[in-house]
Amino acid sequence: MTTTAGSVFDSDTASERVGEHEFALTLSDRWTTLIGSLNGGFLLAGCLQALRREVPHPDLLSASAHFLRPGTPGPARISTEVARTGRRTSTGQATLVRDDREIVRVLATFADLDAADGPTLVGGEPPVLPPPDQCVDPYPRERPTISQQTDTRMAQVPGFWRGDPTHTTTAEFWLRLSDGRDADPIALAFLVDAAAPVVFDLGVAGSSTIELTVHIRHRPAPGWLACRVSTNYLIDGFHEEDFEIWDSTGTLVAQSRQLAIVST
Amino acid sequence: MTTTAGSVFDSDTASERVGEHEFALTLSDRWTTLIGSLNGGFLLAGCLQALRREVPHPDLLSASAHFLRPGTPGPARISTEVARTGRRTSTGQATLVRDDREIVRVLATFADLDAADGPTLVGGEPPVLPPPDQCVDPYPRERPTISQQTDTRMAQVPGFWRGDPTHTTTAEFWLRLSDGRDADPIALAFLVDAAAPVVFDLGVAGSSTIELTVHIRHRPAPGWLACRVSTNYLIDGFHEEDFEIWDSTGTLVAQSRQLAIVST
Repeated sequence: MTTTAGSVFDSDTASERVGEHEFALTLSDRWTTLIGSLNGGFLLAGCLQALRREVPHPDLLSASAHFLRPGTPGPARISTEVARTGRRTSTGQATLVRDDREIVRVLATFADLDAADGPTLVGGEPPVLPPPDQCVDPYPRERPTISQQTDTRMAQVPGFWRGDPTHTTTAEFWLRLSDGRDADPIALAFLVDAAAPVVFDLGVAGSSTIELTVHIRHRPAPGWLACRVSTNYLIDGFHEEDFEIWDSTGTLVAQSRQLAIVST
Repeated sequence: MTTTAGSVFDSDTASERVGEHEFALTLSDRWTTLIGSLNGGFLLAGCLQALRREVPHPDLLSASAHFLRPGTPGPARISTEVARTGRRTSTGQATLVRDDREIVRVLATFADLDAADGPTLVGGEPPVLPPPDQCVDPYPRERPTISQQTDTRMAQVPGFWRGDPTHTTTAEFWLRLSDGRDADPIALAFLVDAAAPVVFDLGVAGSSTIELTVHIRHRPAPGWLACRVSTNYLIDGFHEEDFEIWDSTGTLVAQSRQLAIVST
């Protein structure tokens, strides 16, 4: 694990073992969205930090989360179960419960990414962006709590952030944790859900994740991460959001898709 | 549910309730791949057929499957658990076990797709294909068992199927169940995994699914289904495969991504 002294991400996703497969934590209000509920990627990362302690493989490879209810700050429990430990991968499950109500259920497979040695053929390119120091921070001074946990840099501020939706449902930008911690696979599982949904640029009021799956494609190098996000299909209020993260060396490190439902 | 008298898909994915949340079935050898193990989408569909009997909502909306071991034909058990039943969606879990070994674990969310009434904005197009009767069946006379359960029609036979890999990792084609049963959401969850992996066109010998998530975007109309599949990133032996299914009216009905590992 990449740890950074004083990392808010590390301390807020950490939990205390209180039973054989049972962990306790207090969900911090630093990760709330505009509507006051906790960010889904943050809840996922908390589950994954607990589950990783139960399996022998060091790296998250793939995680799928089904979100059952909005999460709110306060005390919570995470229960884990290891389904299989194999030579190459381990798979387990984590369930986060608050006030006796299940908030999110996660299946995840772990591996040793450094041990992967098959063929490589990359058919895509990283986002083309000016260097971070030549980009702008798109957030206004008053910003949602969750957005304060990441730094974002864009070539220009998207229309809807100025109150002028342009009906563009793709975006490219730089992203990193604002606490200075470099990303590892579990931080990537948070970051794929950390940006404002691109459907906001259609003028919708909000979007709630139903399911999110993230695949880690490589251990990320330190530094800024180049992100590409797109929504191609909004159908009867449901939309997918695809997210790619490329590291500072131009390597694809994470790929995610979520299914979400908009509020209007 | 769309049922068709004598549907092999219906009978082979059906299970008998043998306990409160326990189902029994015999996995048929009609769904085996080239290497003799059962197709992942078939195993997923069996799990979903059992789980659907446990929830009040009629339609699969989103399913995530983590594949733990190869499945083989023979007797098996499916255990289900309902995590939450809400007004708009229900979420549950299914685990398929054979010979006391867990083969696949599934999380799935169900909804009533006809009740969805939010905004629609479609940013993509269905595959452009000649009508099925002007296409060719790409399969040779000797074909893998699983491929006999679907009909495939392509504008032309891909290179690798003639022993001449062209290093193309995208494909578009028509697909349907060969038993005459029209697709419903659970059949779509099978069909997104029913075609030969496009990485075969890179000359790899095989590909094993680690995780597959499918989102159902609309109830499919009867008839042939237009499919688009692509793999953009093969990294150290791991690759994603993205799959879209459009129905005969030109509506996007399913979207999936799987993470798989190639054998060389």
